[in-house]
Amino acid sequence: MKAEYINPFLNAAKNVIETMANLSVKNEKPSLKQGNLSWGVISGLVGMASEKLKGHMVISFDLPCILGIVSNMLSEQYTEITEDVIDAVGELTNMICGGAKKELSEMGYVFDLAMPLMITGKDVEITQFGKGPVISIPFVTEKGRFVVEANLTER
Amino acid sequence: MKAEYINPFLNAAKNVIETMANLSVKNEKPSLKQGNLSWGVISGLVGMASEKLKGHMVISFDLPCILGIVSNMLSEQYTEITEDVIDAVGELTNMICGGAKKELSEMGYVFDLAMPLMITGKDVEITQFGKGPVISIPFVTEKGRFVVEANLTER
Repeated sequence: MKAEYINPFLNAAKNVIETMANLSVKNEKPSLKQGNLSWGVISGLVGMASEKLKGHMVISFDLPCILGIVSNMLSEQYTEITEDVIDAVGELTNMICGGAKKELSEMGYVFDLAMPLMITGKDVEITQFGKGPVISIPFVTEKGRFVVEANLTER
Repeated sequence: MKAEYINPFLNAAKNVIETMANLSVKNEKPSLKQGNLSWGVISGLVGMASEKLKGHMVISFDLPCILGIVSNMLSEQYTEITEDVIDAVGELTNMICGGAKKELSEMGYVFDLAMPLMITGKDVEITQFGKGPVISIPFVTEKGRFVVEANLTER
């Protein structure tokens, strides 16, 4: 994954969560993902594909973070993972990857988004098939933490 | 998901597993997926995307099935889920969705594949974001069972 691919995901994640959940969001330093263990209790996944590019983005939230985000988004207090929470993760995944897609397309990297999937479970490991480093961007909010992982590579 | 989208996934899954694992594969009747629980102990996911279409395919295996398939593929006895097994699931996911893509493109439905991801864990739930029925196609081999789930819809 090229370094110039990182900022569009970082900017989109920050903008979408700040706007949708009315929370201030700070990112920590992006790094290469180590190991396969997914982070947090719930993840949204979406594939990216075109004739020239392929990739995926995964966003994972800790429990207080996603409950705080969805409670703010839907103006209702959520204390556990419900269908609404899972659906909101899909919506956020779509919006964040859509934001990154827009910024990347302006840089000449054009692709379409697949259908987001949301993953919940215990000790979930998400492994990428194929070479290429996955960039991991940690974020901190006043409700909790989330991480965006992405890989976008030329075919 | 249109009914005519089903056979390309069914044919590709049968062909790829029969060819790669030298096993005879029979399918049972496709149906609409009920609920979100993923089936089996390991799943391969891949997104499909173009300007006109978006979707995903998930293939999930029970433990004896994936161990039997990978043991045959790699001519080595596998008794647990290892990195090789996870990698083989990615390879099979890519090949099966690639086969379906080829057959669908001949029917005029053109899309590209995203990067496959493999999911392992306990009580994993995979939920689709967005409307549209997911078709579930169960398969039986002499080693065990696997299921292909797919949704492909027009934007």
